[in-house]
Amino acid sequence: MARRARACEDPRMQPAQLRILVTGGTFDKSYDELGGKLHFAESHVPEMLRLGRSRLDVVVETLMLVDSLEMTDVHRGRVLAACRAAPEDRLIVTHGTDTLELTARAVGAARLPKTIVLTGAMVPYTFGSSDGLFNLGSALAFAQTLPAGTWVAMNGRAFPWDDVRKNRGSGVFEECGPPPA
Amino acid sequence: MARRARACEDPRMQPAQLRILVTGGTFDKSYDELGGKLHFAESHVPEMLRLGRSRLDVVVETLMLVDSLEMTDVHRGRVLAACRAAPEDRLIVTHGTDTLELTARAVGAARLPKTIVLTGAMVPYTFGSSDGLFNLGSALAFAQTLPAGTWVAMNGRAFPWDDVRKNRGSGVFEECGPPPA
Amino acid sequence: MARRARACEDPRMQPAQLRILVTGGTFDKSYDELGGKLHFAESHVPEMLRLGRSRLDVVVETLMLVDSLEMTDVHRGRVLAACRAAPEDRLIVTHGTDTLELTARAVGAARLPKTIVLTGAMVPYTFGSSDGLFNLGSALAFAQTLPAGTWVAMNGRAFPWDDVRKNRGSGVFEECGPPPA
Amino acid sequence: MARRARACEDPRMQPAQLRILVTGGTFDKSYDELGGKLHFAESHVPEMLRLGRSRLDVVVETLMLVDSLEMTDVHRGRVLAACRAAPEDRLIVTHGTDTLELTARAVGAARLPKTIVLTGAMVPYTFGSSDGLFNLGSALAFAQTLPAGTWVAMNGRAFPWDDVRKNRGSGVFEECGPPPA
Repeated sequence: MARRARACEDPRMQPAQLRILVTGGTFDKSYDELGGKLHFAESHVPEMLRLGRSRLDVVVETLMLVDSLEMTDVHRGRVLAACRAAPEDRLIVTHGTDTLELTARAVGAARLPKTIVLTGAMVPYTFGSSDGLFNLGSALAFAQTLPAGTWVAMNGRAFPWDDVRKNRGSGVFEECGPPPA
Repeated sequence: MARRARACEDPRMQPAQLRILVTGGTFDKSYDELGGKLHFAESHVPEMLRLGRSRLDVVVETLMLVDSLEMTDVHRGRVLAACRAAPEDRLIVTHGTDTLELTARAVGAARLPKTIVLTGAMVPYTFGSSDGLFNLGSALAFAQTLPAGTWVAMNGRAFPWDDVRKNRGSGVFEECGPPPA
Repeated sequence: MARRARACEDPRMQPAQLRILVTGGTFDKSYDELGGKLHFAESHVPEMLRLGRSRLDVVVETLMLVDSLEMTDVHRGRVLAACRAAPEDRLIVTHGTDTLELTARAVGAARLPKTIVLTGAMVPYTFGSSDGLFNLGSALAFAQTLPAGTWVAMNGRAFPWDDVRKNRGSGVFEECGPPPA
Repeated sequence: MARRARACEDPRMQPAQLRILVTGGTFDKSYDELGGKLHFAESHVPEMLRLGRSRLDVVVETLMLVDSLEMTDVHRGRVLAACRAAPEDRLIVTHGTDTLELTARAVGAARLPKTIVLTGAMVPYTFGSSDGLFNLGSALAFAQTLPAGTWVAMNGRAFPWDDVRKNRGSGVFEECGPPPA
């Protein structure tokens, strides 16, 4: 009986209430047949949650569907406002990887009393070789266990918002390294 | 500078050393063309780590490739021995979902001073509609953040080893519920 | 103008009316999550026609959904009867590859005044590595151009019904070879 | 014995020698992760022949890898020259769908004594929802059975080179319709 009580007391073990804020990026790119190009139609995140057979209590809110290279401070301000306004205190933000670290800093610096995990994908979910499902499973798990703060979940790891960047050559996320002397 | 130091001090944020112990299950079923049946060839876990673009420091060790309905106490003993012998203190065990909870109990009851996360898949990775990648990303994240103990990562959640079962009707993992009066 | 008239006179160039008779086989195997096995649910052929963006005038009729190893003369009799009864004179039969040649002989020997093309798949359509779509496109094309007779379309080729067998070692279809002296 | 002899005499039933001339188009688009765009890397046609488990005697020759909107008369001239130079008299040309009909006319008007079948895809092969495999199976079958002339194989059908166009609104190929009075 003792152990079961312990499980119930552990707040991480309650069916988590989470909100996923969708901004687009490669996570949600689709192929537009008639135009022969990539474009955004609807978010794939609900379908990915079904595929993962998620039984978490999750709300998916599409804020925008843009390539992160096109995001400005206005977009990032909307992301921060949505994080602030969300009733949940555990959030995920799906985002293009190109400027994900900029949005992580904008949100992180606000020091909201919430666990906020940003993630993205290098290959569109609609392609065969996508990291999207892996990253979504990863981000959902980190969002349930990490303490309040803003984090980036990529490549299987979680980085604090103020010590992460995308390596442009390899496409991999890494720490920023020691500050210059 | 304060925040960076705090990140470095946080043991969860070091590139984790993890070991994945593969036992088979639906995670690793393949289609045998000539026989027209499902079978085990080699583990798909290394390929799934590449697809997820994992940059974790992970060793993959294939203990066996069996359907979990065929596992006996001898098999479970081998899993426990491998958990004990592993140099890492953060482990993942990939396993068929049908008797995953039995292996979780065998390992959990040994109270090893390690974080051990068992996971599986309802649909083979080689099928289009697989939860495998999602569960692997989930399990890798939980293995990095949960405290010592044995856990089951399925359906986006992490369950303590002594409060989880597979609902045979729905195929979904859930808590066991309150003990009988 | 002469050439256009010639195209209109060419009966092969009319939007063909075809009927696809579905009997099951690997073409239509699905993964049963709860049971952890392969099984038949519904035929995938309508979905495959959509994926191929077929604009042919095709009727899909599911006769049965069985593994061809389980077919008896009764099953083959039903296939022949359906070929006879079909209003169309260009037919495709989707079939398990293990005994496809037996059904081809049962139908071919009846010498119906129709073009009948049998095809199958070595890997289920629901797997990533399936030959199903390729074979369906192949069979539909052969059904529009081959003269009356019964044929087997596999591995990109069309074989007459009385000179084809499946090589059990390689899984590839080939001619029977010269008769014994 | 009579029937087997007839099969051997039927030139369509010999293992066909075919050449596939690759020009690119959606058939061969890939996703460039680092750039976040579509691009051409290598042709997917050899892999698609393996997936279809083709046992035809086929040579694959990559002439170019371009989007057909970028093709000029110089490109089309190279395609025609390659058709003329090929030792085989049954050819397939993979091509972007946007100007496929223009290349069909350039080749068709030359009246080469060969069966030449042009095909393309509306969705890249590397996406889940591709018509590429279906069209390749279709084109290979039509190339083995149609008489000398230039044809377009799309949407399950074969069109003569001088009576086909892509409907820009629907993305579907159709006859041109009767000439104006």
